[in-house]
Amino acid sequence: MAPIMASATCTAPVNIAVIKYWGKRDEQLLLPINDSISVTLSEMYAKTTIVASPEFSKNRLWLNGQEQTFDSPRIINVLQQFRQEVEKCGIKGDVYSWNLHICSENNFPTAAGLASSAAGYACLVYTLATLYGLQDKIELSSIARVGSGSACRSVYGGFVQWQAGKLPNGSDSLAVQLAPSTHWPDMEILILVVSDNRKKVSSTGGMERSVKTSTLIHHRAMQIVPERVEKMRKAIQERDFETFAEITMKDSNQFHAVALDTFPPCVYLNDVSHAIIDLVHRFNAASGKTRIAYTFDAGPNACFYLMRQDVPQVLNLIKRAFPNDRDATPDYVKGVPVVEEPVPEALASEMRLESVGQNLLKYIIHTRVGDGPQILPSSESLLDAAGLPKTA
Amino acid sequence: MAPIMASATCTAPVNIAVIKYWGKRDEQLLLPINDSISVTLSEMYAKTTIVASPEFSKNRLWLNGQEQTFDSPRIINVLQQFRQEVEKCGIKGDVYSWNLHICSENNFPTAAGLASSAAGYACLVYTLATLYGLQDKIELSSIARVGSGSACRSVYGGFVQWQAGKLPNGSDSLAVQLAPSTHWPDMEILILVVSDNRKKVSSTGGMERSVKTSTLIHHRAMQIVPERVEKMRKAIQERDFETFAEITMKDSNQFHAVALDTFPPCVYLNDVSHAIIDLVHRFNAASGKTRIAYTFDAGPNACFYLMRQDVPQVLNLIKRAFPNDRDATPDYVKGVPVVEEPVPEALASEMRLESVGQNLLKYIIHTRVGDGPQILPSSESLLDAAGLPKTA
Repeated sequence: MAPIMASATCTAPVNIAVIKYWGKRDEQLLLPINDSISVTLSEMYAKTTIVASPEFSKNRLWLNGQEQTFDSPRIINVLQQFRQEVEKCGIKGDVYSWNLHICSENNFPTAAGLASSAAGYACLVYTLATLYGLQDKIELSSIARVGSGSACRSVYGGFVQWQAGKLPNGSDSLAVQLAPSTHWPDMEILILVVSDNRKKVSSTGGMERSVKTSTLIHHRAMQIVPERVEKMRKAIQERDFETFAEITMKDSNQFHAVALDTFPPCVYLNDVSHAIIDLVHRFNAASGKTRIAYTFDAGPNACFYLMRQDVPQVLNLIKRAFPNDRDATPDYVKGVPVVEEPVPEALASEMRLESVGQNLLKYIIHTRVGDGPQILPSSESLLDAAGLPKTA
Repeated sequence: MAPIMASATCTAPVNIAVIKYWGKRDEQLLLPINDSISVTLSEMYAKTTIVASPEFSKNRLWLNGQEQTFDSPRIINVLQQFRQEVEKCGIKGDVYSWNLHICSENNFPTAAGLASSAAGYACLVYTLATLYGLQDKIELSSIARVGSGSACRSVYGGFVQWQAGKLPNGSDSLAVQLAPSTHWPDMEILILVVSDNRKKVSSTGGMERSVKTSTLIHHRAMQIVPERVEKMRKAIQERDFETFAEITMKDSNQFHAVALDTFPPCVYLNDVSHAIIDLVHRFNAASGKTRIAYTFDAGPNACFYLMRQDVPQVLNLIKRAFPNDRDATPDYVKGVPVVEEPVPEALASEMRLESVGQNLLKYIIHTRVGDGPQILPSSESLLDAAGLPKTA
């Protein structure tokens, strides 16, 4: 007789903020001090299978092929919050008491510091909801939020706003979709993964220290961000790239400014990051209009937003400024295929385009604006019929 | 018959701010948006000789051995402002209409970005005043200010506050001495000159852009700095190094945060600067108390304030973290001689002291809290009896 079990496999995407989340007003509930806005990416996602069975003697968890102890407070928070939401809706069933086997993988290197926890926790929550058939019955973003703040934004595709909310219990701190992935079809994304060995302060530790010690962060959260959120919503609505780009770059810089105003300071950008910023400003200035917007999360990697027609030239721009021994190898530019086009010589000369140095980047990822979480067929499951990793 | 001429030779010191000047409310008069506080250094100074003669057909200027055109608006401003002050005091004489030969040198590399303009303009004004015998008759700091803002602080020794002032004509924007150089005899200074080839934004251009584009700078100037100035004055008065150091480091970080919040951003710190900051925090933490305060002007070089008894160990700390092929050469540590002492192994181990990389520093300067401008005997003149550079 086949074992009694329920199973679901889903994906959830990475998102990159254009108005940054930095600072919590509640460390337990992961409630932010300001709204944030993000773009959901295609190509980069977490994939999770969850199997529930009355025959499992305990909960088990595998991340990227390695079994983990099941005592992460974040994971426990998410499961607890999920059960509370289920109870609140009056939903009952034996299945909710069954132990779980959870297996999750990212399709991109976790070590690259590319918002892997956001995709991971969004995927956990979405897969749980799918397992129980509750995707449309409960609000998922606020559950994902208690795993990792920015995970709430990965519950939707396209352009997403995380509303900070005001209630102490956090029930109004959730994500809403501003526009679907199809809204701005010309927008594309390039991620420049920077070679870096520097130990960095974790986001969680860094933002806690910023809230305690920065004398600029509250001014930012109260006075600057609300105005930027309104302008950014309008820019997205009207597909106004110039405004979108300016706010994106200014907000990235301001987030890193606040990190630097922390004591001791949190430093996520390195000399390569700053050389990338300088390159973008010179390229935009020589182009006579804003063609690239950069943004940096809590790490040295750059994320460029740009229009589709500019991608071929910008790829050439990057390769000329940051030449790499692996430039011509097939896996150097990952993601959506793109054929490079030379930067016009007049432009290259105007902006004094030259090599910053060899091998300063690891690789480049080309993505688009992507959709939210997806349900996969059972054939895509990461767990076998016994609830153990297929590839373990 | 000997030519008719008047001559004076003086020095004026470098100063390094512990509460930073960043942002002008008047670009012409060089009026700042906030007060600043600095420490005047020994060992590092500009030396200037001015000769006035009715036989000189025009004004001439030599800087560090090279003749310059006499059309710098800053120099012309200073001379004009000086004459206005002289007239205001009812002082008259033929000597004020004579043309000038001005020769100025720094005793430290100008290219190192070590506040050379502050010492230079302070020296120009003090030497002019000495030439005319007016040192005590006119307020010199506000005249030096119109050459280079921070020059007003180099008119005094010890601990100096530049009061921003409120009047539109800038007459209340001047420096006052908080305490003489002898006030805190244990305080010493180490300057770590960082190897760097990056083109940087000039201070003048950078601060103008910050005032126009940063949404944090005004909050800093209005809300944060006034409070810090009061605390810093008290810390200096009471020789409270812990508080002095904390405010110094926080204000350096906040100045660079505001520079980063500028659009396009102004970046003066590099990876080596950040490695120095990290080293100081780890050394202080492992020591169980604050033994070093860092501060960075608009460039990558670090300035450490520390107590005399810590200098020998800190020199060893620097050499272990930033080993240099020239470590043992006599000119690697310039300034006041110092005998190195090893960092205790327990401390080195506790802070995980290791090499960041080879040859990341150019050299180190050891200085103390210094006096204000000095008058030198005519034998020290940089100009000969004909009013031409002796070494040209």
